[in-house]
Amino acid sequence: MSEIASGPWAAALTPLNEDLSVDHAAYADHVAWLLDNGCAGVAALGTTGEANSFSLDERRDLIARLGERGFAPDRMLIGVGCCAAPDTVALTRAALAGGFHNVMMLPPFYYKNVSDEGLFRAYAHTIETVGDPRLRVIIYDIPPMTGFKLSVDLLRRLREAFPNVVVGVKNSSGDWSAMQATLEALPGFKVFAGSERFLLQTLRAGGPGCISATANVTSRALAEAYANWRGAEAEALQEAATRTRAALEKYPPIPALKEIMALTRDQPGWRRLRPPLINLGAEDAASLRAVLHELAL
Amino acid sequence: MSEIASGPWAAALTPLNEDLSVDHAAYADHVAWLLDNGCAGVAALGTTGEANSFSLDERRDLIARLGERGFAPDRMLIGVGCCAAPDTVALTRAALAGGFHNVMMLPPFYYKNVSDEGLFRAYAHTIETVGDPRLRVIIYDIPPMTGFKLSVDLLRRLREAFPNVVVGVKNSSGDWSAMQATLEALPGFKVFAGSERFLLQTLRAGGPGCISATANVTSRALAEAYANWRGAEAEALQEAATRTRAALEKYPPIPALKEIMALTRDQPGWRRLRPPLINLGAEDAASLRAVLHELAL
Repeated sequence: MSEIASGPWAAALTPLNEDLSVDHAAYADHVAWLLDNGCAGVAALGTTGEANSFSLDERRDLIARLGERGFAPDRMLIGVGCCAAPDTVALTRAALAGGFHNVMMLPPFYYKNVSDEGLFRAYAHTIETVGDPRLRVIIYDIPPMTGFKLSVDLLRRLREAFPNVVVGVKNSSGDWSAMQATLEALPGFKVFAGSERFLLQTLRAGGPGCISATANVTSRALAEAYANWRGAEAEALQEAATRTRAALEKYPPIPALKEIMALTRDQPGWRRLRPPLINLGAEDAASLRAVLHELAL
Repeated sequence: MSEIASGPWAAALTPLNEDLSVDHAAYADHVAWLLDNGCAGVAALGTTGEANSFSLDERRDLIARLGERGFAPDRMLIGVGCCAAPDTVALTRAALAGGFHNVMMLPPFYYKNVSDEGLFRAYAHTIETVGDPRLRVIIYDIPPMTGFKLSVDLLRRLREAFPNVVVGVKNSSGDWSAMQATLEALPGFKVFAGSERFLLQTLRAGGPGCISATANVTSRALAEAYANWRGAEAEALQEAATRTRAALEKYPPIPALKEIMALTRDQPGWRRLRPPLINLGAEDAASLRAVLHELAL
């Protein structure tokens, strides 16, 4: 079993049919396109993929259909974390059954001010209940959505308890000092930055790369930055990636990225979102079009 | 069909078996005890009931078993709000199938900084998909868990669009000015305070009462406060209720309330919690015992 791939990953957007069900064919095509166009791998059913807007059955179905396409397991990461432990267990089993051993696992995120001990028990319960030695878990630390940060101590404890299973973290805090502290405290732990803003810093600190929403539309540029990260152009390529990211961060991320997909692929269906997410307003959409032109995306 | 009852409601704790499955018999007994001991009604599967720590199937099962006990529908409120619309629809249908037409509905709570328009569409989609004229919805506004507040404008818009369905809100912000603003802006809308701290203020402003975690262990005192809210003792009874609440608020609420149940009923099994919630530490447990003695709970 090969290790999870290093480099820039895309947190894949999920295309929808008119009734807001998943457009499975378009989804698999998008995953394939990303893998063929610069992404080291694709994280399915993350925040960008609107995972938590789909029922357990819808998510299981999506995973099974991805499995049928036979994507390389070391280049796929399946989001499985739910509020309820039985749901997280079910999705983790679905990922393994689909041939995907790498999962990205949110903490149970309903309650706030929870203890490290409680979070440890929640993760341990899930991993032990699944009980599959093939499983590899990337802990998903996304304070802007969960409302709390995961401590380095918690990560260390999980890694020590499950050394072959808990292999890394995706840090979507936007706070480089938190990523740096984790990289320094846990050598060899796969700390993925949640944004390409920190791609070069992460690689230089020994991390494997980034998992990014923006990579849905910037994968080739990120691949170039990754290919040259030890070279003379590394800083310039990182600066270009950061500029693009900064320009896009002015918009609500998922609606903006779906708008870009709709425009650049000339497929209006890409604009569909599940509430509570909604499309960009006319003014934002117009200004985004101008930005795309400048960025030559 | 009679209206949802006024007065103090308990947000029921959920007793668990050793394997952390729901102890359905103990649960129904607890609901019955609360209804017989001062509660105007019982909210099942709320935050206090650890709703989001149970899978959809576990929640459907709990609702069906409650239905078999034949509790009065006007005295029951079923928590149905999930991140994913299909899950909220499924639980709402389960509540109606169980004979319970009053539901308490969280907004889809994964994404933050969402728009009123997006939240309106999410609620509207659920209500229209369920499409049952018997349905009555209490919107569940709990910023400490969801990470965002629901605006009065959103509530007004939902009430106007679904005047017979969206009948009220549970405001668990802890912010009286927010409850007051809603009571003033939407006369006749059933604004339940999320804490008995605001019971008297809510009643005087025309609201129906409160839905409280603490009521699991203070129902009789709250019933007395409610029975006398127009009388000479109203202020003194409210002050006593607030003092008790304040004393208990020093502890993590759900673990503390389960500890109190275990102690006062002499049933240690009440202490069981699903991670990420964990029991009080020894020091907190000891200090809580002293507080219980002072409060004569």
